[in-house]
Amino acid sequence: MAGNSFGKLFKLTTFGESHGVAIGGVIDGCPAGIQLDLDAIQNELDRRRPGQSKIVTQRKEPDTVEFYSGIFEGVTTGTPIGFVIKNTNQKSKDYSHIKDVYRPSHADYTYDKKYGVRDYRGGGRSSARETASRVVAGAIAKQFLNSININAFTSAVGNIQLDKPYQELDFNKIETNVIRCPDETIAEKMISRISEIKKQGDTIGGVITCVIQNVPAGLGEPVFDKLHAELGKAMLSINAVKGFEYGSGFEGSKMLGSVHNDKFNEDGSTQTNLSGGVQGGISNGMDIFFNVAFKPVATTLQKQETINSSGETVEMQGKGRHDPCVVPRAVPIVEAMAALVIADYMLLRRQETNN
Amino acid sequence: MAGNSFGKLFKLTTFGESHGVAIGGVIDGCPAGIQLDLDAIQNELDRRRPGQSKIVTQRKEPDTVEFYSGIFEGVTTGTPIGFVIKNTNQKSKDYSHIKDVYRPSHADYTYDKKYGVRDYRGGGRSSARETASRVVAGAIAKQFLNSININAFTSAVGNIQLDKPYQELDFNKIETNVIRCPDETIAEKMISRISEIKKQGDTIGGVITCVIQNVPAGLGEPVFDKLHAELGKAMLSINAVKGFEYGSGFEGSKMLGSVHNDKFNEDGSTQTNLSGGVQGGISNGMDIFFNVAFKPVATTLQKQETINSSGETVEMQGKGRHDPCVVPRAVPIVEAMAALVIADYMLLRRQETNN
Amino acid sequence: MAGNSFGKLFKLTTFGESHGVAIGGVIDGCPAGIQLDLDAIQNELDRRRPGQSKIVTQRKEPDTVEFYSGIFEGVTTGTPIGFVIKNTNQKSKDYSHIKDVYRPSHADYTYDKKYGVRDYRGGGRSSARETASRVVAGAIAKQFLNSININAFTSAVGNIQLDKPYQELDFNKIETNVIRCPDETIAEKMISRISEIKKQGDTIGGVITCVIQNVPAGLGEPVFDKLHAELGKAMLSINAVKGFEYGSGFEGSKMLGSVHNDKFNEDGSTQTNLSGGVQGGISNGMDIFFNVAFKPVATTLQKQETINSSGETVEMQGKGRHDPCVVPRAVPIVEAMAALVIADYMLLRRQETNN
Amino acid sequence: MAGNSFGKLFKLTTFGESHGVAIGGVIDGCPAGIQLDLDAIQNELDRRRPGQSKIVTQRKEPDTVEFYSGIFEGVTTGTPIGFVIKNTNQKSKDYSHIKDVYRPSHADYTYDKKYGVRDYRGGGRSSARETASRVVAGAIAKQFLNSININAFTSAVGNIQLDKPYQELDFNKIETNVIRCPDETIAEKMISRISEIKKQGDTIGGVITCVIQNVPAGLGEPVFDKLHAELGKAMLSINAVKGFEYGSGFEGSKMLGSVHNDKFNEDGSTQTNLSGGVQGGISNGMDIFFNVAFKPVATTLQKQETINSSGETVEMQGKGRHDPCVVPRAVPIVEAMAALVIADYMLLRRQETNN
Repeated sequence: MAGNSFGKLFKLTTFGESHGVAIGGVIDGCPAGIQLDLDAIQNELDRRRPGQSKIVTQRKEPDTVEFYSGIFEGVTTGTPIGFVIKNTNQKSKDYSHIKDVYRPSHADYTYDKKYGVRDYRGGGRSSARETASRVVAGAIAKQFLNSININAFTSAVGNIQLDKPYQELDFNKIETNVIRCPDETIAEKMISRISEIKKQGDTIGGVITCVIQNVPAGLGEPVFDKLHAELGKAMLSINAVKGFEYGSGFEGSKMLGSVHNDKFNEDGSTQTNLSGGVQGGISNGMDIFFNVAFKPVATTLQKQETINSSGETVEMQGKGRHDPCVVPRAVPIVEAMAALVIADYMLLRRQETNN
Repeated sequence: MAGNSFGKLFKLTTFGESHGVAIGGVIDGCPAGIQLDLDAIQNELDRRRPGQSKIVTQRKEPDTVEFYSGIFEGVTTGTPIGFVIKNTNQKSKDYSHIKDVYRPSHADYTYDKKYGVRDYRGGGRSSARETASRVVAGAIAKQFLNSININAFTSAVGNIQLDKPYQELDFNKIETNVIRCPDETIAEKMISRISEIKKQGDTIGGVITCVIQNVPAGLGEPVFDKLHAELGKAMLSINAVKGFEYGSGFEGSKMLGSVHNDKFNEDGSTQTNLSGGVQGGISNGMDIFFNVAFKPVATTLQKQETINSSGETVEMQGKGRHDPCVVPRAVPIVEAMAALVIADYMLLRRQETNN
Repeated sequence: MAGNSFGKLFKLTTFGESHGVAIGGVIDGCPAGIQLDLDAIQNELDRRRPGQSKIVTQRKEPDTVEFYSGIFEGVTTGTPIGFVIKNTNQKSKDYSHIKDVYRPSHADYTYDKKYGVRDYRGGGRSSARETASRVVAGAIAKQFLNSININAFTSAVGNIQLDKPYQELDFNKIETNVIRCPDETIAEKMISRISEIKKQGDTIGGVITCVIQNVPAGLGEPVFDKLHAELGKAMLSINAVKGFEYGSGFEGSKMLGSVHNDKFNEDGSTQTNLSGGVQGGISNGMDIFFNVAFKPVATTLQKQETINSSGETVEMQGKGRHDPCVVPRAVPIVEAMAALVIADYMLLRRQETNN
Repeated sequence: MAGNSFGKLFKLTTFGESHGVAIGGVIDGCPAGIQLDLDAIQNELDRRRPGQSKIVTQRKEPDTVEFYSGIFEGVTTGTPIGFVIKNTNQKSKDYSHIKDVYRPSHADYTYDKKYGVRDYRGGGRSSARETASRVVAGAIAKQFLNSININAFTSAVGNIQLDKPYQELDFNKIETNVIRCPDETIAEKMISRISEIKKQGDTIGGVITCVIQNVPAGLGEPVFDKLHAELGKAMLSINAVKGFEYGSGFEGSKMLGSVHNDKFNEDGSTQTNLSGGVQGGISNGMDIFFNVAFKPVATTLQKQETINSSGETVEMQGKGRHDPCVVPRAVPIVEAMAALVIADYMLLRRQETNN
């Protein structure tokens, strides 16, 4: 109930604070018999790792995952997969200055109100460091999903937006630049913008688009656990996310039904896909796609006035090594969460008919 | 797992198809000792009822809720509250023409792919009629929440948008017009637009905004079950919803951190509220607000080409009595789902500290 | 969380008090495509019905189940099955004398301590009437399970015990007598004993044995949700149950390992079955069997001293129509709960390997 | 769903195989603000540790718990408590001889049938080594429960039974002997019996009794999640358990209602306690007590015939270091599971009334 688990049948539970001994997780419900490519898992973690480029935080953490259980001779056994990522570069002293300070638009104040106690070092449990565990689990989910392709990419940084539909993009180009935008010209602009913002000690928001291809029709539950509702929750659970839309999204609210309806082809596919691959909460076999909005990182390096836990006004200034924009490192996190949702629904689907 | 339940501690399970004997639900976990106002519950149902105005479906259904358990001498007993709403106006014959037809952008095709069998009458389980049960449960949740105020209203119909921040609106005016928009001038335009669309046999989308006030700080779970993530899922689970954003939302992705951060006052409140009342997934005591985008209703009264279950092209035309725009009747549904989420987190919060 | 649901994938939620409008339930997760025999469901309810013989309560209630959803043209649709059993013979006045009285070894006192309010009529939610909903769901589970056979029978009433292993019994004889014991001679003795006890206004306990045959190997979860642990919980959740043992049971605790181990045949079956069909929490394909101990009914017709809610000593005497021994009517309840457990694990099993 | 979690609000998830890198777990939902005594936790683990006396397995494993998260400056923070116990003494070679062999009355065969693959070393996930993680979590639950006392002890080894009611025993004597029986004379007999059995290379079963004192009235859920049903499941989930009874237990099934009913005192306590502290599934404030039956350990050191995975008859002989009787090491496990159940219900209780 305390909300550290995700998924029903393919279920991830994570633990760990940013500056504790380690973070990690347990995947319960991963089917037996999957031959795992452990390098591919580490590779996903590397996509999320700090220090990977000049436009992300310069913290150096290897973020090496160690598996403790659930895998025998390289194959999943059906028992829980326990894993750990040690925290090696915690400079706890960096945080002594904020011990009693509530940083604006961070979770310091709300954790104190909720729990009455908190590990203030680096945001503790509220740090996005927790998402490294999600990336590990998502990487395993991806291997289970096999022929289902999940590609996320940066579609906006501030006002700089990718202006093509995803069908015109080459997903192979996503990893060719540090912002993870498959259009190289736009990517350059985004990178410049972030570099500029960074020099000012400021931060900026952005949007990630995700496309899931080769999903069979019939995934999703019809009422509360609609496929897109669970995808929405998954995305909104990622740090700094402010919005989610799929298919026609907010633009769809401006349309007429005569325009918005997706006409069927005789094979059951549709000529347009304003539905975003989901109808009535259930996948229809078309591409699933959605947008995820991220706010600017709350930690800026500019001086700010704020309050401390005694309600006194204090001045603070972010130090240490922070991301000027979360979007490039969030791309693998979006993919991981999407993979966890789809894996879960693939398993849920197995018992729905009497065959 | 089959997704017909919502909530963890304050939990609603619904059942029922649009043209079966009845729909209904079970609320498990409603605390004992709440003196219920049963008229207030029926009143919420009436806000959702078909036939309430000229801009909604003209079906006439009384939608009277009957309680079977869990309430004794007007007070909740802590045992499950079972309730039923009889289906009295099911004209099943209206639907015989679509028995084998997959209506575009409906759930006919996906249900068939998922279950191999379906109750095709009126959309069966995929019909928004199911949401009447949510409204009943939400009305009880509201009574439990007591001093927490939840107000939803129509903020856009197609391109006609409410252009004021919610702080400048008078929520008492929401129920003064049939579109449920608290600005009377805009409301008039919205109503005209829908009437016009209706004459064309077409439909149109819209946006609902919801504001939750007097929420104590400390609600929400920090990782996967962030308060806004659960609100997002709740909203995305409502029929026809395509997007959700809270606080600064998608606009927030264009901002700089130096602008986006909400500065604290000494009492812990904030000067701005781009956070939308939630920081790190946990309420901070400020107003919670969010937008929900609805697509245009898929059933138009215009002729459409589509396919049947044999993959043959057929022509169809919606008949019967349908909503030209779901938004006015969806306002109480948005409120109900918000109330269910907040009630659940109010209970979840009770065991989080050792006091 | 409030404990009115059972099962993970094949999930029953019940509602209803003994003297409210109706009891009922929702089955969520029943696979689509099962052709249901509705008479067989009612027949199971009739096995549990009051007034069926001279050794059970003489209340007359038809206990007719009405289905409201989830079944279309006789076939399950995969959507929730909502059902209701109206309470037709509630003589609430029978209970006004116990409104403030805590009956010994009943749940009156504990409900008051827990909820601070209760429906005192006929035990309210604590009445075994709730199990009628379980019997409905169990009857549907049985039809899903198809070739798996579940037979429960009375193996003891007080000190009168069935003295043969179940392999020597003819399960077809269970329904030939009103105590539901497949050995006619023992059955006669049990019936006489109950009749005698009844004349004294007293009650007596008993034991039910249940045998599940044709269960495939591989059902059950290895750690907390061992198959026999869930069966145990299911049985212990039935009113008046005090103990559960499977396979060698309590006798097994007295044995040596060299005697207790079940030797394998070359086909994987075992020569003995002290394991009771479950090893390491997982079925091995052998018969699953277990015993369930029931205490004597707490309501006797003799005068008793007790206290009221003000802590004053009062005298009370059960009136109305009560069972002198719950065991004969509990036989179908034991089978229903066993069916629910096995159905759930049959579904759980579907996603455990990567095939 | 895969059954590696226990509890609803105070929730333990365990991972790990007997011969993997480590076992461990995550406790999610432990309230914030508990000052933990870490030595007391390790002390509970030491009570379960191999090699602690001559009547248990002579494996030497330190079983040191390491906490990775959820505790800050000695106090629980409300975030998940991740912990690990490294496997230091895995002699995997000891098990190469059983790689393809199905040991009688072990879980080898059933795991293969379920998963198609298994870690055969030392029983893998089916090893009772997993219970060390439960002991860690239970020790934390005990500290949360504070003034609620949970005492388990050995009440039978084979036919040697403790013949006094628990009220006449001195729980302080439980830890004074290696069998953990509070009656020293009986303890001696039990120890001799086990030593004798061990010399024969055989094993023997036993019974553990557990008494929970100072539980407030009102714990437990009324229908499926009755307090004793959850305790029963908890106990039946422990390796080698074959039966569970509480209060009057199986003996109660032989009694008359006039004898079995517990008469109230004016303060709500009862003169007898055949109910075992639970009425209608809810605690009544009296002592809760129950018995747990353990079968003899399946691994004997005698030669046995069995089959391999090809269905061929083979001869095998247990080697390595095994327990002749699980009961002495299971005492802290029974207490741990009882503590987890009670902690969970203490939290569940917090939201049941509207106060």
